[in-house]
Amino acid sequence: MHSLTIVSGRLEWSTRPDPIPQGSQLLVRVRAAGVNPADLLQVRGHYPPPPDAPQDVPGLELAGTVDQVGPLARHFKVGDRVMGLVGGGAQAELALVDESVALAAPEEIAWESAGGFMEAFATAYDALIRQGGLTVGARVLVTGAAGGVGTAAVQLAAAAGAQVTASVRRTEFHARLRELGAHRVMVPTDAAESGPYDLVLELVGGPMLSSHLGQLGTSGRLIVIGVGAGRRMDLDLSLLMARRAGIVASTLRARPLFEKAALVRTIGERLLPQLASGRLLVPVAAAFPIADAASAYARVGEGGNLGKVVLLSGG
Amino acid sequence: MHSLTIVSGRLEWSTRPDPIPQGSQLLVRVRAAGVNPADLLQVRGHYPPPPDAPQDVPGLELAGTVDQVGPLARHFKVGDRVMGLVGGGAQAELALVDESVALAAPEEIAWESAGGFMEAFATAYDALIRQGGLTVGARVLVTGAAGGVGTAAVQLAAAAGAQVTASVRRTEFHARLRELGAHRVMVPTDAAESGPYDLVLELVGGPMLSSHLGQLGTSGRLIVIGVGAGRRMDLDLSLLMARRAGIVASTLRARPLFEKAALVRTIGERLLPQLASGRLLVPVAAAFPIADAASAYARVGEGGNLGKVVLLSGG
Repeated sequence: MHSLTIVSGRLEWSTRPDPIPQGSQLLVRVRAAGVNPADLLQVRGHYPPPPDAPQDVPGLELAGTVDQVGPLARHFKVGDRVMGLVGGGAQAELALVDESVALAAPEEIAWESAGGFMEAFATAYDALIRQGGLTVGARVLVTGAAGGVGTAAVQLAAAAGAQVTASVRRTEFHARLRELGAHRVMVPTDAAESGPYDLVLELVGGPMLSSHLGQLGTSGRLIVIGVGAGRRMDLDLSLLMARRAGIVASTLRARPLFEKAALVRTIGERLLPQLASGRLLVPVAAAFPIADAASAYARVGEGGNLGKVVLLSGG
Repeated sequence: MHSLTIVSGRLEWSTRPDPIPQGSQLLVRVRAAGVNPADLLQVRGHYPPPPDAPQDVPGLELAGTVDQVGPLARHFKVGDRVMGLVGGGAQAELALVDESVALAAPEEIAWESAGGFMEAFATAYDALIRQGGLTVGARVLVTGAAGGVGTAAVQLAAAAGAQVTASVRRTEFHARLRELGAHRVMVPTDAAESGPYDLVLELVGGPMLSSHLGQLGTSGRLIVIGVGAGRRMDLDLSLLMARRAGIVASTLRARPLFEKAALVRTIGERLLPQLASGRLLVPVAAAFPIADAASAYARVGEGGNLGKVVLLSGG
């Protein structure tokens, strides 16, 4: 098969042996695979993949059809349409996915959306609902709201009955964010002065972090998922103490399989029907043939996309 | 009546009219009142009292007998022994306590312990159990464990089945902390290298904060209650992200009456029987006549006490 391969900090489109599914693994013929900021960091050597993932093939999410099943797989059969959440290896013609982190891909949605669903929605669900304890009426700020996780988070928070403010740099995307459910859409400098917020989903990081902390309401939480614009801050704990506020930070990629499996099961039970019915959308900013991954990676690196950047294969 | 009164950053023992209980307030003849670090900050003008508390009389906790009851008070009567959690005004011969933040003082314990119970145990319970979600087996570090909140937290965490490490600077107190339930007692530099911890109760602050963050296990929480040694830190969020860890900070004094009432009711239901039976103790480092508050405040300011410093009145 062919796969993207990281060679000395660059991506190549190279040939390697077909993987063989072991245990409860599925071998999936990839039709679409999302490109995430973590992939760019990994290619540059700044973000080592988890030890149980392919070390030189990037890609955290995919959709495709089951090509082979391992001897312990029980839930999927050859030919099934699936989506998978993996620690690496998705950006290839064939990828191994343990069936515990696979979901049936609804017939109703296009491959490119299915390929960009898992990482974005699993991250947003885990951050907002599990870690943030989001409940009806909560005042939520989503920063970097136009991105893959951002658009997922805005939709989820709106569906949960929250009061959603989306922070988006590019004003040409503001109307689309309102369509996705945001009640207020603002440029970052305005959003950072328009609290109080019960929950801030931080997908950007950098100099606005302190402003966001200062806008937390009583018992508010800053949930840090992305810090591409800067990961350090000078923290004055007395600010947090006065509000009984907190900072929680998280990543999804490094978690062990059993934790991802628990999250994927919940996503399947709670979000899959809404994805199938079109109530939850996976906006795709751009799709590229996988052999032209360089263009896709450049697009993610430039930023300013509305939704996901996806690689397409086969078909 | 007489009360301690803050005059230009100093404490005086002065005369003022007896307070009159309104609504559901009790007028309590104070027998003992704890001195807390917050009182020292307040006297120096660094920590304004909450707006509904006496502005110039310090003291956050007391024990005594009910002298009068307000027209809406239903749960206590004149002569009852009570303990109270207040936003100020406790360090006086007479103090107003809303009955929603009063508990019956067990006959079995001395006034000096009853007077130092409420703030320490309410703070420790709220931090460890409510905010920290402490459960059986959790690996807990309590810093500043010899103090009033620290000795309460060590006992509570041990009673909850946690694995308790106490960080105490003075080695002469280590044996006593083991008697109170700590499984390991260490000097701070050792405790800060002896994780992982699921929960760190930070009662000190300052240069050890970053070390404590670095010792958090997966999904660990740093709960910040005291920052006397320094409230600022240079926070690297990627450290937290890798562990899915968080920082939560809190204070008790500034909360509105209804929140304190909810906490006091829980303390009454869950901890009062154990205080009466002697399973939970309020160690008292020193007790002074209230007219000699200067000595008591000096003692708290010096630090290095095992347990509470208490003012005594009447009797």
